[in-house]
Amino acid sequence: MVASDRRWEMSSSQSYFAQRRVLITGGLGFIGSSLACRLADLGAEVTVIDAMLPDCGANRANIAGYEGRINIRIANVRDREALDGLIDGQEVVFNVAGRVSHLDSMIHPVADLEDNVLAQLQVLEACRYRAADARIVFASTRQIYGKPQTLPVTEDHPLRPVDVNGVNKMAAEAFHVLYHNVYGLRSISLRLTNTFGPRMRVKDARQTFLGTWLRAIAERRPFDVWGGEQLRDFCYIDDAVDAFLDAAQATHGWGEAYNIGGSPPISLIALAKSITELDNEARFEKRDFPPERKIIDIGDYYADDSRFRALTGWTPRVSLEDGLRRSIDFYHKVLPAYV
Amino acid sequence: MVASDRRWEMSSSQSYFAQRRVLITGGLGFIGSSLACRLADLGAEVTVIDAMLPDCGANRANIAGYEGRINIRIANVRDREALDGLIDGQEVVFNVAGRVSHLDSMIHPVADLEDNVLAQLQVLEACRYRAADARIVFASTRQIYGKPQTLPVTEDHPLRPVDVNGVNKMAAEAFHVLYHNVYGLRSISLRLTNTFGPRMRVKDARQTFLGTWLRAIAERRPFDVWGGEQLRDFCYIDDAVDAFLDAAQATHGWGEAYNIGGSPPISLIALAKSITELDNEARFEKRDFPPERKIIDIGDYYADDSRFRALTGWTPRVSLEDGLRRSIDFYHKVLPAYV
Repeated sequence: MVASDRRWEMSSSQSYFAQRRVLITGGLGFIGSSLACRLADLGAEVTVIDAMLPDCGANRANIAGYEGRINIRIANVRDREALDGLIDGQEVVFNVAGRVSHLDSMIHPVADLEDNVLAQLQVLEACRYRAADARIVFASTRQIYGKPQTLPVTEDHPLRPVDVNGVNKMAAEAFHVLYHNVYGLRSISLRLTNTFGPRMRVKDARQTFLGTWLRAIAERRPFDVWGGEQLRDFCYIDDAVDAFLDAAQATHGWGEAYNIGGSPPISLIALAKSITELDNEARFEKRDFPPERKIIDIGDYYADDSRFRALTGWTPRVSLEDGLRRSIDFYHKVLPAYV
Repeated sequence: MVASDRRWEMSSSQSYFAQRRVLITGGLGFIGSSLACRLADLGAEVTVIDAMLPDCGANRANIAGYEGRINIRIANVRDREALDGLIDGQEVVFNVAGRVSHLDSMIHPVADLEDNVLAQLQVLEACRYRAADARIVFASTRQIYGKPQTLPVTEDHPLRPVDVNGVNKMAAEAFHVLYHNVYGLRSISLRLTNTFGPRMRVKDARQTFLGTWLRAIAERRPFDVWGGEQLRDFCYIDDAVDAFLDAAQATHGWGEAYNIGGSPPISLIALAKSITELDNEARFEKRDFPPERKIIDIGDYYADDSRFRALTGWTPRVSLEDGLRRSIDFYHKVLPAYV
């Protein structure tokens, strides 16, 4: 049901990941499952652990067609017993589990702390004691910078998160850096910008506003554009998956955090307009920011990701237009499994 | 039993805190109890909450003579039911509870997270819902900077903590900033350097190496000087208490973090020598840093605390020599209550 239209040349990822033992935390979510399916295609021995928290991205439909090729364990990574039972012998850990909703984090800060910091600390502790040679790629976020003081944002930009989620992700990333510096774990952190594409949660705005846009488009309803002037960069899921795979194969640069950007920055209103050109039934309505959202808004953001490109040779390969088209097509076909 | 030799002029603190309702988390520990006793002397209505964790600084002896003048609740601040029962009507919250041992945090990172981040988040949530007008002063630490890149360290120095405790304190401070920015709580964070003096834990090195020095001196044993060339600044407890009281009375500057320094920087070896001049029976032995300690050592540190001085007019009033003399005298008298 979920098929990538990307053709796989005999890439370095293909030879690197064949038969490799890989664990993906949050592996039924948007990014996690995209990684899992790609890795299964590359011949890796893939295990995923996912708590299937109702407010997060996990969805069984994400691995449709891959059920026999991915080992699945439903458990929270905070559960060390479950985690320890999976960690032995893993060569790569993609640590993608976490809560992503900024608004939820303000309403349930303790839950966000438990699933975004405590959980990550447990992953690192498990690796420290049982998989010290594993490569660990952590899904961090641009949210830890807070409101950009300079653009594009480099990794040296101060970290001034504006919501609970941002504080927690900042702490989790700092633990990944620390466990490299102190224990030599080969961890690396990717500060993702807006990642979008097939398999993302679209039933609400918990995985960015684009989710609600894609749902509305598939349901032939107008989508809401909040504010509109903010500049953002967007990374298509296949490119984000490439970044994770490339990070795991890095020969140096461990213990560091890298921005992952994407397409050139675009305002939300321009993005909305370009969507209406891709899908001529799509319509949108411009709306004012609600106050509870405004207070944690970061304004314009776009990343300077030259450090990661220099480290790995990674470059996004899917244009924003192509990515949007594939995403719209996907939800036109499979929306019922995602709402 | 514990008597400050400081004479209290009719200060601004005296008029501000008289009859004021004050809650101190970690109020039986070194700094917390010093605050509690001072505030009781100033006529405040003082409540302390303390979990009396065995590896932390709590000690009933710290409030000897003040038992009837301080309300005491033995509970962990993570216990929201206990906290909520105390928070209503509080006008000032000195949020001092926490674990301070860097080595312990590496061995028990989850416990450190729970008591240094989750606990602080619960304090802030309790204030948000039940004491939104309270002033909140948080005890942060120089440890969040990690190894200084430039000296003296200003508040703009990057935060690159080198141990689990540093990551957790960084996150807790960020929550205090956030809860000001988002909810308007009047929180302020003090990044303390080495604080020392009567009431500190001396049974081991959990409250800095100076604790073990003071114990050894009182027991007429040589104390160990690890390394020795590192430069540090030291803040005598009475001056630290002043800083907390001044911070609570600030008229602006909420949502910010401020360095609290102290005496001019001095190497550990010079500090050790000056102690032998103050107490002519004191002796020390120079030792090499153990490897588990070296890996999380931050090298030289001393603070630029001019921002806090400009904000409040605070200035340390006790010389290093006087502070050391008072500390040595204190443990000569009351050591059995502290070992």
